[in-house]
Amino acid sequence: MELPSDATETILARWPVAELATITEDGRPHLVPIVFVRTGETLWSPIDGKPKSGRELARVRHLRRDPRATLLLHHYDADWSRLWWLRLECVGEVVTVAAPPRGEEARAIDALRAKYAEYARVPILAPGNTALRFAIGSLRSWRASGEPLVVEPSGIEPPTSALRTQRSPS
Amino acid sequence: MELPSDATETILARWPVAELATITEDGRPHLVPIVFVRTGETLWSPIDGKPKSGRELARVRHLRRDPRATLLLHHYDADWSRLWWLRLECVGEVVTVAAPPRGEEARAIDALRAKYAEYARVPILAPGNTALRFAIGSLRSWRASGEPLVVEPSGIEPPTSALRTQRSPS
Repeated sequence: MELPSDATETILARWPVAELATITEDGRPHLVPIVFVRTGETLWSPIDGKPKSGRELARVRHLRRDPRATLLLHHYDADWSRLWWLRLECVGEVVTVAAPPRGEEARAIDALRAKYAEYARVPILAPGNTALRFAIGSLRSWRASGEPLVVEPSGIEPPTSALRTQRSPS
Repeated sequence: MELPSDATETILARWPVAELATITEDGRPHLVPIVFVRTGETLWSPIDGKPKSGRELARVRHLRRDPRATLLLHHYDADWSRLWWLRLECVGEVVTVAAPPRGEEARAIDALRAKYAEYARVPILAPGNTALRFAIGSLRSWRASGEPLVVEPSGIEPPTSALRTQRSPS
């Protein structure tokens, strides 16, 4: 069965991670997890300052060549009556964010800071100021049952994360 | 940085969910979460008896047409120093499992029952006995840091799942 629309809205606003599928130069599927925020009918995912390989990332190269992208948001649970997924077919675009960001880009950057505490210490954009902009084309969803849904970000944090992520403010 | 090989082995043995990317008839990427087990250099994912749409599943249709499949296993964590992913480029094959299963298929079915408690109540194969067999071609991984890795299935169960998944034995 499909997810109810209020659950879809909550998931798009709060779920912390999506898997991004793009098409490689030789027509293979490629996958990488991404963080994102939603502004209207658009999702934004920055190429942030976490350590990565030096050259242009595969997801960026692929989208420059073929903008078709599919995003998956899903909850795994040992109780399969609580499984759900939400799949978005999107048109992706590689954007260079102006410094300082303006308009919709500024709203996206603000929303990323509000959604992810880690942006207090990870640069929200890597040198080059590249972000991915996904226009949502179609949306499909599935849930295993009518059981209450786990749609909060805490749903995929490990049980002990509250302990393990404690850091002294440095 | 890459995952150490012992972590890769543990993840392939114990991580409960992967995202499967295939190519649609018109060359788009398609995504769905799957459960799986590993036998040697092969991953197996059954089309199980959870409720689904009636017609042949997209993942099955796609793999019959183009066997190229990419699988992603990853851990999201609010602490980004604990992020990791493991990506497998595979050749997928649609298999009809004999009844009763024999040889490698029997080992895969046994391993699925051992890995997923839900198979005590969900039929491990839907009518048609279809399973997906993925030959692992290449493997790439990434981790954000040298911090201890969350590589146990419990890592993506919600904090309260132990309470929520309690069911009376009926």
